[in-house]
Amino acid sequence: MATVTVLGAGMMGSALCVPLADAGHDVRLVGTHLDEAIVASLRKSGVHPGLGLALPDGVRAFYHRELEAAVTGADVIGIGVSSPGVRWAGDQIAPHADPGCPIVMITKGLAVQDGTLTVLPEVLRARLPPAVRDQIHPAAVGGPCIAGELARRVPTCVVLAGRDETALDRLASVMTTGYYHVRTSAQVVAVEVCAALKNAFAMGVAFAWGIHERQGGEASSIAMHNHEAAVFAQAVVEMQRVLSVLGADSSCAAGLAGVGDLYVTCNAGRTGRLGRLLGMGLGRDEAVRRMQGATLEALDILGTMREALPLLERRGLSTSNDLPLLQHLIAVALDGVQVKVPFEKFA
Amino acid sequence: MATVTVLGAGMMGSALCVPLADAGHDVRLVGTHLDEAIVASLRKSGVHPGLGLALPDGVRAFYHRELEAAVTGADVIGIGVSSPGVRWAGDQIAPHADPGCPIVMITKGLAVQDGTLTVLPEVLRARLPPAVRDQIHPAAVGGPCIAGELARRVPTCVVLAGRDETALDRLASVMTTGYYHVRTSAQVVAVEVCAALKNAFAMGVAFAWGIHERQGGEASSIAMHNHEAAVFAQAVVEMQRVLSVLGADSSCAAGLAGVGDLYVTCNAGRTGRLGRLLGMGLGRDEAVRRMQGATLEALDILGTMREALPLLERRGLSTSNDLPLLQHLIAVALDGVQVKVPFEKFA
Repeated sequence: MATVTVLGAGMMGSALCVPLADAGHDVRLVGTHLDEAIVASLRKSGVHPGLGLALPDGVRAFYHRELEAAVTGADVIGIGVSSPGVRWAGDQIAPHADPGCPIVMITKGLAVQDGTLTVLPEVLRARLPPAVRDQIHPAAVGGPCIAGELARRVPTCVVLAGRDETALDRLASVMTTGYYHVRTSAQVVAVEVCAALKNAFAMGVAFAWGIHERQGGEASSIAMHNHEAAVFAQAVVEMQRVLSVLGADSSCAAGLAGVGDLYVTCNAGRTGRLGRLLGMGLGRDEAVRRMQGATLEALDILGTMREALPLLERRGLSTSNDLPLLQHLIAVALDGVQVKVPFEKFA
Repeated sequence: MATVTVLGAGMMGSALCVPLADAGHDVRLVGTHLDEAIVASLRKSGVHPGLGLALPDGVRAFYHRELEAAVTGADVIGIGVSSPGVRWAGDQIAPHADPGCPIVMITKGLAVQDGTLTVLPEVLRARLPPAVRDQIHPAAVGGPCIAGELARRVPTCVVLAGRDETALDRLASVMTTGYYHVRTSAQVVAVEVCAALKNAFAMGVAFAWGIHERQGGEASSIAMHNHEAAVFAQAVVEMQRVLSVLGADSSCAAGLAGVGDLYVTCNAGRTGRLGRLLGMGLGRDEAVRRMQGATLEALDILGTMREALPLLERRGLSTSNDLPLLQHLIAVALDGVQVKVPFEKFA
């Protein structure tokens, strides 16, 4: 049994506590300052309002002001904040960072930092004290994992990527349960880039649902699945190209963190709904309005990728020839251009 | 303008006529002896009963007994029969085979022939007269393409694979339209193996729908998408392993013929329905009965793969270690074993 402290009581951080508690660990879930109402509900009834269910008894909820008590004695620290909160999370755990206590991040995303495209474990690590920074390599989880399903113990396989093999093995043995199958990988950049890009591309796969609806179509086995699938395949091609030019292992795009997570993100959740609204021709502003304030990771990552495109061009990618789908997604989501997938440029 | 004769008036052969006619070609659709009622309907009203719509005016329907008239003067021959009909189709067109008239197959599948796993273009070619056999290399189409959607002009991208580059370029220029985007590939074995295997694996992805229903779940963004996606990712891994051991280009599994076609086959059509029924725990016989006589490509390919497994073992694959998903699919579909996906063996 280990003591695991998870920072961030949103959907995903809280869902991760379910397999951890089922594995018999002492699980301490710490809300951020945005999670006060969630922690209050967990304290009162055990129910997580976002997930719509009670977390197992083995999970104890802590307010942000109780962080120090929650993190003292932890064997593993989990980071489940939203991607814009990673620097903040690094600052929070910095006083407690210890090379003997591995860190695992379920937060997914990318950032442009010091002129390079940087994965979130590196963004977090940069906030740790210089004395321990070189000895701690946060691991990151990729692969298909809808939070609401993990919390309901739907089986899945995920990939845990990191540079520190000993920490990875320790984390995998702590996290694996009969329904949450964890395998390890050294390809942290590849896994994290896939994990981030899949949100952008899943939005594009879902365009077809909206186009179909706009044309009066109903959900059916004859709809616009060909359109979805052609976008899906191009998404994998473009993921591979981005990985290659970053010097990362392009084969990850065909694995759990690539096709696995892309598949699940197309078929469930916010990103698919956003893509559908855009495909209906509502325009960016109206589509975002109808999402009623939901976190839209697709817009975050597309913003980051727009910033990163000149960096990729300098490394030899041609945005218009090599990334026509990504370029169209940026135009639709950030510039309000109407959806018209450039199939003729795909290859 | 070219004259294109398509043999096989089922869903896919007939759907292919739509882009061909839209591209301005003289399209001659020839039924097999199983397609008499379809041809009669097309002659009478233009409507294809399976597709539920009228084919364009540029498509003329022929009975099987009129084959000779239909194929005389053809610039391109298309083969759209079912996979068990490929040898028969080869015999039918053999008297008309001409190196100047490229052949394109939309029939997908694999066969064990002379002790090796053989792609259908080779099965067809073996039926052609010795005098021309070495000069004709039938091309094959892979990639996402639900027939009912192609006939309704839903955009897609497909890959046309073959050994004869000149023929491929000719075929691609004949077949491409504004919604049917054709690119070419020399990887005919890889494309055909993906095109065949996707039916088996799509059945496995769909198991989760049935399991979810059996547990009282409804269609929702929270269902068993994690389960589906973990199977999807493993399917791609196992496709890559089969391709590698056959000496084919394993990267095809991440392209249109692999992930693209797998995605669309999961989300539409018979194979997904069969997988759902199996996931519901009905057992193989009852599931097949409820499919009411529909062609079940998944069972065909799983039968072929069971026959081929010893050949793959001899080339160095371990069925139980390297292909645990495929092995489970064979057990469920052919031996009546209950669905229980072996996630713990995945990697």
